[in-house]
Amino acid sequence: MTKLIKMGQNAKAASRILATLTTEEKNNALNLIADEIEAQADFVLTQNEKDIADGRRAGLSQAVLDRLLLTDKRIKALADDTRSVANLDDPVGSVIDAKVLPNALRLSKRRIPIGVLGVIYEARPNVTIDIAALSLKTGNAAILRGGKETLRSNLALVKVIQAALEKASLPLSSVQIIDDPDRALVRELLRLDQYVDMIIPRGGAGLHRLCIEESTIPVITGGMGICHIYVDESANLEQAIDIVENAKVQRPSVCNALDTLLVHPAVADEFLPQVAARLAESKVELRAAPKAFSILKNGVDVHPAGAEDFDQEWLSLVLGVKVVGGLEDAIAHIHEHSTEHSDAILTNDLENANRFVNEINSSAVYVNASTRFTDGGQFGLGAEVAVSTQKLHARGPMGLEELTTYKWIVLGDGHVRK
Amino acid sequence: MTKLIKMGQNAKAASRILATLTTEEKNNALNLIADEIEAQADFVLTQNEKDIADGRRAGLSQAVLDRLLLTDKRIKALADDTRSVANLDDPVGSVIDAKVLPNALRLSKRRIPIGVLGVIYEARPNVTIDIAALSLKTGNAAILRGGKETLRSNLALVKVIQAALEKASLPLSSVQIIDDPDRALVRELLRLDQYVDMIIPRGGAGLHRLCIEESTIPVITGGMGICHIYVDESANLEQAIDIVENAKVQRPSVCNALDTLLVHPAVADEFLPQVAARLAESKVELRAAPKAFSILKNGVDVHPAGAEDFDQEWLSLVLGVKVVGGLEDAIAHIHEHSTEHSDAILTNDLENANRFVNEINSSAVYVNASTRFTDGGQFGLGAEVAVSTQKLHARGPMGLEELTTYKWIVLGDGHVRK
Repeated sequence: MTKLIKMGQNAKAASRILATLTTEEKNNALNLIADEIEAQADFVLTQNEKDIADGRRAGLSQAVLDRLLLTDKRIKALADDTRSVANLDDPVGSVIDAKVLPNALRLSKRRIPIGVLGVIYEARPNVTIDIAALSLKTGNAAILRGGKETLRSNLALVKVIQAALEKASLPLSSVQIIDDPDRALVRELLRLDQYVDMIIPRGGAGLHRLCIEESTIPVITGGMGICHIYVDESANLEQAIDIVENAKVQRPSVCNALDTLLVHPAVADEFLPQVAARLAESKVELRAAPKAFSILKNGVDVHPAGAEDFDQEWLSLVLGVKVVGGLEDAIAHIHEHSTEHSDAILTNDLENANRFVNEINSSAVYVNASTRFTDGGQFGLGAEVAVSTQKLHARGPMGLEELTTYKWIVLGDGHVRK
Repeated sequence: MTKLIKMGQNAKAASRILATLTTEEKNNALNLIADEIEAQADFVLTQNEKDIADGRRAGLSQAVLDRLLLTDKRIKALADDTRSVANLDDPVGSVIDAKVLPNALRLSKRRIPIGVLGVIYEARPNVTIDIAALSLKTGNAAILRGGKETLRSNLALVKVIQAALEKASLPLSSVQIIDDPDRALVRELLRLDQYVDMIIPRGGAGLHRLCIEESTIPVITGGMGICHIYVDESANLEQAIDIVENAKVQRPSVCNALDTLLVHPAVADEFLPQVAARLAESKVELRAAPKAFSILKNGVDVHPAGAEDFDQEWLSLVLGVKVVGGLEDAIAHIHEHSTEHSDAILTNDLENANRFVNEINSSAVYVNASTRFTDGGQFGLGAEVAVSTQKLHARGPMGLEELTTYKWIVLGDGHVRK
């Protein structure tokens, strides 16, 4: 038996116990974890220092090192976040639907945990705590696989979690972490369908593709957004400048940031130079299709768009710009290039707004707002597990409910099928 | 470009149009399909006769041939079933959830079609019409791949559907069928993730495993049921005999039929001979674990259970029988052997009923009823696409709602994220 099969069996066994816990018992465990994180801060920080030292030697960039770094303040934030998860509503056990059939069978659908989650993520130690807390809250066991650059920090954090689980008299296998950076283990995890019920990749397009290709377990794909804003003829242009700036500039490295600006030809001459001037203040580089380029070519950082520029998730201060023929053309462009994450129309025309909302089937479709709102916290879900752009199970920001499934409960009185 | 990629592109284009149809337009198309099935009955029957003749030459069993066979009466039933689908409620467009956020963003979740469904099924011409109707009703395009034994019948039926689609001015690519029995095309379909959003296999364990192993598209797995009934100490034994007989005998070839009977030791001596006598009337063969065997060994068709006998989906008049230590032992047995399709407890003890319902997380969990009710029609869903035993997206009988997903619609008034 391989180490991973053993982990899978232990996780499945733990999940049976977690599934029957009361909300109170789960919250108690979460609060114990928060306390333990604070109590063992020195241990975690020491292990993190070693990761950071290795990362420095390996020549990781300052930005990446900052992502790996834990500090007293960040440790405190991890504990506080865990306590916040304890305060969220518990979706498990709630009845989604209930009815009495004509033959008097009583039928209901009850929310239950999914079982065992496999979570694969990049080097961010906070994800270790985040996912462990959300899994426990929803009665799921988790097998974690974090980036190798924070292996020591992650192992330390899982040790802390397990110390708290022991105090809560819960199985230590409720939260496990793969302690070997060998990549072959990722592939093995992806084929552990006998024990793992759901794979959540949190990382770039490459990780998602690996999971899609290799996994025999259902995968939540997403996290990649080629996001569009279409500025219609009737848009409030002043508002539009603010929205485009916000969507592009406020946090360019995330999946709900703007990638492509589409503009109605009747307002292109007026709007494009104004929005370009505003974006230039934040040093945004524009990649403009021919018509937009001819309007913008005297601007500061404007280049003709290349063949691939409208299929890019920029994740940086770059923006594709194109003058389209109108609404229909904008919709066609989005159908062709969107990853169905977040797409917006800015308009004052109700018919056009409705048509956009009806015909664009992205996970989040906006009218007169920035795409930056696609987020579990912003949508009021209290937490965010991932942003799904797939069609099954969950779309858009996933909260606690999306870490549950349901069972049908059928209560009879000696019923047999006729 | 391969033929399948072309089919995928055409299906995706058709799905954009289907997604915007009104319920009335979809129902009109369904009724036209029903009319066309009746009008072209002779054409379909002629093609079916050729399939049957080939099947006879190939030495297919009478049971299989009967499954392939179309008759005037069955053609009429296909048309009627299509009209029934037109009469079902349309889930598309309904609002699942709506709220106003503190910043006045108006947020709602709207049901939309999934997009393009890939359906792989065995030789049953009725599935061609069934799936086409359910897909159209929910605004999805479908790419079908039926068993090779009914290829001519299926091609004829899709021709009939497309004739009706033309009359309804809908894209012919709304319903397409792979017209080549080459198995390599199944594998190609399973990797068409750029165009196909969901794979529904309707067939045996081998087909499901192939899809799990090969598909890069989310797969609805299920259809395989190792189903249990546990007869508790306090069960009404007379009722229990009726329920066990119903679950095993009424239609033994289907996934919700009973596979294993577990019995509390306190009632085994009384119950087992009685239930065995009843089952003997239907010529059920029993495979009994040692304790049960020692009670039943003088019965008509009783054999000692082999090592694998409790991991069998019998699909025939065979039943595994085991005396367990009690409720806890029964739950442990089900956890180990169930495929999480349908499992039942027969008891008059409320605490035991609750514990069983809480700890067994199968798709359908029964108290005092036959497992045979796990069915879209029986559960009042109006239709059945498949029975899912997976955890994501859908569990148990899938109706029209499970052929939809949702999008978030966000209406603002110039909102930017702070």
